[in-house]
Amino acid sequence: MSADPHVQDHFTGWAAMAPRAPLEPYRFDPGPLGAEEVEVRVEYCGICHSDQSMIDNEWGNARFPFVPGHEVVGSVVRLGEQVRGLKLGQRVGIGWYKGSCMHCHSCMEGSHQLCGTVKPTIVGSNGGFADRLRAHWAWAIALPDSLDPALAGPLFCAGSTVFAPLLELGVKPTDRVGVVGIGGLGHLALGFLNAWGCEVTAFTSSLSKREEAQRLGAHRVLASTDPEALKAAAGSLDLLLVTASADLDWNALIGTLAAKGRLHFVGIVPSAIPVHVFNLIPRQRSLSGSPVGSPASMASMLAFCARHQILPQVELFPMSQVNQAIDHLRAGKARYRVVLDASR
Amino acid sequence: MSADPHVQDHFTGWAAMAPRAPLEPYRFDPGPLGAEEVEVRVEYCGICHSDQSMIDNEWGNARFPFVPGHEVVGSVVRLGEQVRGLKLGQRVGIGWYKGSCMHCHSCMEGSHQLCGTVKPTIVGSNGGFADRLRAHWAWAIALPDSLDPALAGPLFCAGSTVFAPLLELGVKPTDRVGVVGIGGLGHLALGFLNAWGCEVTAFTSSLSKREEAQRLGAHRVLASTDPEALKAAAGSLDLLLVTASADLDWNALIGTLAAKGRLHFVGIVPSAIPVHVFNLIPRQRSLSGSPVGSPASMASMLAFCARHQILPQVELFPMSQVNQAIDHLRAGKARYRVVLDASR
Repeated sequence: MSADPHVQDHFTGWAAMAPRAPLEPYRFDPGPLGAEEVEVRVEYCGICHSDQSMIDNEWGNARFPFVPGHEVVGSVVRLGEQVRGLKLGQRVGIGWYKGSCMHCHSCMEGSHQLCGTVKPTIVGSNGGFADRLRAHWAWAIALPDSLDPALAGPLFCAGSTVFAPLLELGVKPTDRVGVVGIGGLGHLALGFLNAWGCEVTAFTSSLSKREEAQRLGAHRVLASTDPEALKAAAGSLDLLLVTASADLDWNALIGTLAAKGRLHFVGIVPSAIPVHVFNLIPRQRSLSGSPVGSPASMASMLAFCARHQILPQVELFPMSQVNQAIDHLRAGKARYRVVLDASR
Repeated sequence: MSADPHVQDHFTGWAAMAPRAPLEPYRFDPGPLGAEEVEVRVEYCGICHSDQSMIDNEWGNARFPFVPGHEVVGSVVRLGEQVRGLKLGQRVGIGWYKGSCMHCHSCMEGSHQLCGTVKPTIVGSNGGFADRLRAHWAWAIALPDSLDPALAGPLFCAGSTVFAPLLELGVKPTDRVGVVGIGGLGHLALGFLNAWGCEVTAFTSSLSKREEAQRLGAHRVLASTDPEALKAAAGSLDLLLVTASADLDWNALIGTLAAKGRLHFVGIVPSAIPVHVFNLIPRQRSLSGSPVGSPASMASMLAFCARHQILPQVELFPMSQVNQAIDHLRAGKARYRVVLDASR
């Protein structure tokens, strides 16, 4: 035991002991604190669709016992010797990634999220459904005081995933942008794009979300599964941001793109997308994808959120009811993001 | 008959009377000259793979009798009343497109090639395997004096198709760029990219072209069908320009892209490309395509060619031997572009 009252010789979390198992209390030894790491006392942690995918070992890369959680807000309680820019007690967020090499070309040009050895928060180590979480200092992003910490967690994965493309792709306020899928990612995308100044079209499978989508920032709402609606929207979008994780009629959706339009994926669509070059060449279209943003992109996002008071719409559950919370998510009932409160 | 000695009441060309038929002499009435059209006396005309596709009616949009030809160099012999910027006797080139509406958003922002009613030179009207060809003035691009008119024709289709992406995609001289397919388009792409300052990799199905590819501008030559070579090149390219019109191992080729890399198609690949978002999202990659460039892009290309003395490597045939020339192309023997001399 250390004399430092902030040092704990073990962390306590919620783990799946096997694929698809309910989570149960789990103690683990985090080992020594790395020189460039910060240790954060978890206050809140969002639940993302990919936590569920990892619990179910859908991608084959989960290690059990498995502690999910990668939308963390908390306070810095310990600083490694080489940590820069953070201080004890500071409130930060940690998202899908918690470390990168810091010296490769991608890291050096500020695209740390594209580092070849970037470290996902919940792949190969334990995540934020726990009392504490560690991250490289670069990936613990300071939270502005004006953003409610109980609501901010989802910004660090869902939010950054849809905000990063606005910077990376050079989206202009004059652009006409569509968002496919109005869930955890999509509902934030509507708010971002509206504040960005764009003409915003929401594509949703359930038109019951029409009024909500408008309230969230959409100027127009279309049914993503209605061939007539897609035909009527032909050639009208500069960017179509796909946050859905379902197989859709991609040719019809590509048809909604204007000249130089882009279909951009941030959701994991299960099947390969059949792309014919006749759909790309004559109108100079693109298809692309991106992960969450860099640390700098996340800091810019937080400042933008603070200025425009954009926050996710969340449902709070006590961390002790994590299994009920996951069931709520699995049932497709989350409106629009579930956040666990670690104090309860 | 008009009193103007430049006016001909008919044009004489070479036409396919039916799909896949050899070309034969063909006279046709071009109708009255449009107010915004120029009439060009054809001096040279390149043969492009798409002339052959249209003769064979591969895309189902050819009209017979069909006069191919869309890589024209010639002299302006008549000017419509509203023509701007051109004068009688001026030497110009005309490529894949010969007209656009001039007032849509794409035309107004200088992307005339993306106009919704852009007019392909050989779709729905007769092309440049003829004594004369007409075009909207905007699409008849002045040829710099220092470029040999006997060689310049292929710049207006093959050349512009591979030059346009350099401007449109913002290719930087520090970029590492691959070219797939060393034929009519690819051999020009190597020269452009070398002069652009890039690190240039040629991907060819026949390594017998290795020395030629190096002479044309490649710093490195790889076999596009060798899985080991592609694996060794993994993650090494910022842009991969596909000029080939064959189905290749796209996943392996996407694997050669670095973070933020782009697979860009300018060749008509027959089958749909199966794209999995796992290949796009984590490394932030794109897939895209583009047609020939705008008139302004072509003018920039010609100035660049004149400054760096980049010209296609061509084989000249008399226009009267057009069928032998087409057979030469069909046999895959063109090194690298066939040009017809209209004076013979």
